[in-house]
Amino acid sequence: MKLAIIGIGLIGGSFAKDVKRLHPETEVYGIDANDEHLNKALDLGLIDAKATYQDLQFADMVLVAIPVDVLVDEMPKILDAIGENTVVFDTGSTKALICKSLENHPKRRNFLASHPIAGTEFSGPEAAIENLYNGKTNIICEVEKTAFKLQEKALQLFQELGMRIRYMNAEAHDKHIAYVSHLSHISSFMLGKTVIEKEKNERDIFDMAGSGFESTVRLAKSSPAMWAPIFEQNKENVIETLTEYIHNLEDFKKMIENEDFKGVYDEMNNTNKIKQILNGIPLTK
Amino acid sequence: MKLAIIGIGLIGGSFAKDVKRLHPETEVYGIDANDEHLNKALDLGLIDAKATYQDLQFADMVLVAIPVDVLVDEMPKILDAIGENTVVFDTGSTKALICKSLENHPKRRNFLASHPIAGTEFSGPEAAIENLYNGKTNIICEVEKTAFKLQEKALQLFQELGMRIRYMNAEAHDKHIAYVSHLSHISSFMLGKTVIEKEKNERDIFDMAGSGFESTVRLAKSSPAMWAPIFEQNKENVIETLTEYIHNLEDFKKMIENEDFKGVYDEMNNTNKIKQILNGIPLTK
Repeated sequence: MKLAIIGIGLIGGSFAKDVKRLHPETEVYGIDANDEHLNKALDLGLIDAKATYQDLQFADMVLVAIPVDVLVDEMPKILDAIGENTVVFDTGSTKALICKSLENHPKRRNFLASHPIAGTEFSGPEAAIENLYNGKTNIICEVEKTAFKLQEKALQLFQELGMRIRYMNAEAHDKHIAYVSHLSHISSFMLGKTVIEKEKNERDIFDMAGSGFESTVRLAKSSPAMWAPIFEQNKENVIETLTEYIHNLEDFKKMIENEDFKGVYDEMNNTNKIKQILNGIPLTK
Repeated sequence: MKLAIIGIGLIGGSFAKDVKRLHPETEVYGIDANDEHLNKALDLGLIDAKATYQDLQFADMVLVAIPVDVLVDEMPKILDAIGENTVVFDTGSTKALICKSLENHPKRRNFLASHPIAGTEFSGPEAAIENLYNGKTNIICEVEKTAFKLQEKALQLFQELGMRIRYMNAEAHDKHIAYVSHLSHISSFMLGKTVIEKEKNERDIFDMAGSGFESTVRLAKSSPAMWAPIFEQNKENVIETLTEYIHNLEDFKKMIENEDFKGVYDEMNNTNKIKQILNGIPLTK
């Protein structure tokens, strides 16, 4: 199999690692706007050779793992360049705009809109790790718009990588992902900001930070070049989640101001059920 | 050595584990309002026997690891009950009120105000783990008010457990810990609440939650019985941190509404330096 990876960072590089392990005969070609990344990916053995869009006509499969703003610009050109039987899929954290922007492309049936819910707070080819996708969910949007034979090829590989497949329409994806992913990133970035602003002149204070703070602020290490365009494309949903989050924080603050610590207790007690939810146990209510 | 542990949960139980490993000859006595916890602690070998306040006169060292509201009520009685050469230390996440409430106690010099920055989101004796304290910071307040010989005994044990000792006054402790610990808990609880409220009828949505959400919402599994009294005792500081956090979230939301995605990028980019801070690298600015 000839696999082209456009954007050879954490997401693309980790994919390459697993595919090479599962199918050692695969030839992996890398395309990246950043030549240093390409060289590193070669050194690390993530890719076998550098390539250009002109080479895409020979690829069986193309993975596109680039920031979502660049994705919208590049995907039409990528589809123009591929062969008849090439399947192309993306990994973007927003799905509505990319699906909309490709709806009339003559090669729409070669594209599979996908969002593997996998990642770490790190980026670049050195951040690539094995088994990143194992046990993770891959959300596929508008599957019916992709040629059946091509869907099959991509989905089979996703399953070999250990992913669970879920189907969803692009609007529903963007709405829900705003809650379970985009909001977490903002809450974490703003937590980091609040603490840095306050404590910038008292560096020793970070000695006081325990594993709780580290866990909650982890996502504030994420790449701004990746996340700013996500918030832009998913603006309406992100604003909605942020409004509700701020409202809940205001209520909690008011309870503390009013010394309603029974209310504070109840709020936390009700939210404790996140334990069951994250363990996949259905709620009774 | 005779060690009494009052409150035999995650914090007390983990302490018992390490002390027993380091000093196998230690006799560990447990006191807990919850008899089930005591029985479990016995079964798990965290303690050697149950005890009462009347036994405290024979203890060399007393660790008190109970919610901070109960702590303020119980500590005077505990100090009344101990022997002349017993050192008592607490583990509470607030320090100003406990120090204030004991300032005139005749046995004030037997008390060491301490806050080991260690824990997990779990609670109870089953949650006790080895090496919880290794590499963690222990903040000691008003050290000068504790008899020197007794400080020495406790601090030496903390160091054997692998802890770094930091000295701070109680008011500064409460102010800074609001930023690096208490605020993280609220941001996490409210994130959990926001997502549960929105998604309660759509359980499948949690399939979409990745490791980022899990990390950010982890602290929402914490014990409300422990945390409500912390927010009560540290009310002023917590309100201040929450006000600043909400303000930063409002600003970020406004930037998204105004489509100022350069600003959004810059905010995140500036906050990325949390990486260096958490790695203990001093900031240039």
